[in-house]
Amino acid sequence: MSKYWSDFVHKLVPYVPGEQPKITGLVKLNTNENPYGPSPNVLQVLRDHVDDRLRRYPDPSSSELRAAAARYYGLPQDCVFAGNGSDEVLAHIFHALFRHEKPLLFPDVTYSFYPVYCGLYEIDYQALPLDERFEIRVEDYFRDNGGVIFPNPNAPTGIALPLAAIEQLLEHNRDSVLVIDEAYVDFGADSAVQLTRRYPQLLVTQTLSKSRSLAGLRVGLAFGDPALIEALIRVKDSFNSYPLGGLAIAGGAAAFEDVEHFEHTRQLVMAEREALVRELRALGMLVLPSAANFVFARHPSWDGAKLALALRERAVLVRHFRGPRTGPFLRISVGLPEENAALITALRAIV
Amino acid sequence: MSKYWSDFVHKLVPYVPGEQPKITGLVKLNTNENPYGPSPNVLQVLRDHVDDRLRRYPDPSSSELRAAAARYYGLPQDCVFAGNGSDEVLAHIFHALFRHEKPLLFPDVTYSFYPVYCGLYEIDYQALPLDERFEIRVEDYFRDNGGVIFPNPNAPTGIALPLAAIEQLLEHNRDSVLVIDEAYVDFGADSAVQLTRRYPQLLVTQTLSKSRSLAGLRVGLAFGDPALIEALIRVKDSFNSYPLGGLAIAGGAAAFEDVEHFEHTRQLVMAEREALVRELRALGMLVLPSAANFVFARHPSWDGAKLALALRERAVLVRHFRGPRTGPFLRISVGLPEENAALITALRAIV
Repeated sequence: MSKYWSDFVHKLVPYVPGEQPKITGLVKLNTNENPYGPSPNVLQVLRDHVDDRLRRYPDPSSSELRAAAARYYGLPQDCVFAGNGSDEVLAHIFHALFRHEKPLLFPDVTYSFYPVYCGLYEIDYQALPLDERFEIRVEDYFRDNGGVIFPNPNAPTGIALPLAAIEQLLEHNRDSVLVIDEAYVDFGADSAVQLTRRYPQLLVTQTLSKSRSLAGLRVGLAFGDPALIEALIRVKDSFNSYPLGGLAIAGGAAAFEDVEHFEHTRQLVMAEREALVRELRALGMLVLPSAANFVFARHPSWDGAKLALALRERAVLVRHFRGPRTGPFLRISVGLPEENAALITALRAIV
Repeated sequence: MSKYWSDFVHKLVPYVPGEQPKITGLVKLNTNENPYGPSPNVLQVLRDHVDDRLRRYPDPSSSELRAAAARYYGLPQDCVFAGNGSDEVLAHIFHALFRHEKPLLFPDVTYSFYPVYCGLYEIDYQALPLDERFEIRVEDYFRDNGGVIFPNPNAPTGIALPLAAIEQLLEHNRDSVLVIDEAYVDFGADSAVQLTRRYPQLLVTQTLSKSRSLAGLRVGLAFGDPALIEALIRVKDSFNSYPLGGLAIAGGAAAFEDVEHFEHTRQLVMAEREALVRELRALGMLVLPSAANFVFARHPSWDGAKLALALRERAVLVRHFRGPRTGPFLRISVGLPEENAALITALRAIV
């Protein structure tokens, strides 16, 4: 606390990311990183870009990257926005599109950064409860609002919503923006990107951190009607002209070109997830149906925090979220086969 | 314009960065980039980091980079903040430290991003005129305010303020934050970083884009009392947990280690600047005394915009800022000897 701070800073409750331990030898299943590395083509492009050009400012509009993402989805480039990771893209969205009189709506169990952005930009919100199966009921959102946002698949539940339900919500919600946060979409849900052609109130965000295995490069995207993209560009150009360096632009574009590596690794992750779900269920755990690169699971007789701690003592990191509904659960990222096996071995010794 | 936008977005007047032309063959003296490349050690560190680690999230606190910058200045690490370029650092400063009842103060001729940040965060400000020699009179700032910011050396004038004047202002300004934006300090001004030990209301920002020749990597820093740094961390952690990728952290840290390359290239730039000033004056141009890697100059009988256009037609890019006081001037980045010679040749043909 300090008299020099702007008022709202005193009330901020920042987001707490998953631990990035500096010690090695841990089985790290806590931040939904991809167990497979980035495309070798991307790594080559990055190496080729490490030269004297770094003295130059990058292209402020990240055109090469936006063009590659636009080509991938068959959209015009002015329907694509790029930022320094999808968290930055989301921050600009909250600021540019969600500051209205009416409250923003999102689920009570969802990405825990959403209420943090509301604190940062002083946005009123209502958290609507998931149903008893931890699913989003779109009918709950058929009400006056200043915007709606949720991930699909939702986090940390991993449960996907069918496109038909999203379209139903869009039909009922024409006066405010609906944001579908598709951080995990490539692991088993259907993308709503093509719906942006028909619904000018729909914005879809994606990241290269998960299915493209580039969390360390920091690239996020948004897809939507040019009028929505323009709001993001105006805010971005009033915040930081150059959010993406030359390496992020070139590497991010290359990631969209290597479809083969992308398809191969996401199939591996999905197959590993299904194997992991079977093993966890065999241990007596309740596992929500996941369309993501993580599972949300609980043991009938263990508290989530205690189980996470017991796993950490056996060098396995998973994520636990406090709260009445999430408290019993663990969010477990899908790792390499040997990492998942280490988790199962540790769980077997504990429960 | 769109009904979906937050209100303030309609009124935003975004910053316009200098052109980054996609055609080659232009003599590019318009964005104050370093004519010499980054340290070869930095390039090697970057190449060595392009590997499977990119699938991981980076260290959210950028510790390695902050530690390197702290060592360089002999400060504790909790006196250092790191961001995605100094524009992002400045954005967080405006948000976290300048939203007060009283107006923010800055010069009428200064970095044109400052009023843009005020628009973004709805901050009231007053622009105080530089004196007739385009210098900052610190006495003008001895008045009630919600904060004070200016670059040292100032941009686009290039004129440096002595540390004694900054200390005089600090003595008179204890109830709000003074930010000294040292983007260009390494080219001839005295850094105020050491004053942060004695003045808890002082924050100093720097960038690796100019004197470290890493505009394409996107690394900015702030130095100050831990209470001020904490405000920035709170806002950063409510905006984007990972503003710097693994490459930016490692490369930025390496840049602080290679003192020899840094010293050598900044001396070259300063020597070239002095040669350029002599040539411009020989052509009859008025040149303000510069402590930066650019000069601010005008021709007695040419309008700045017209002269910039005439230079562009001869494949030389310089920057022009509209406005009653800046309109007659050109901001010319110091280039390689042959680039500066090309500028002089073009000017000779025009004026």
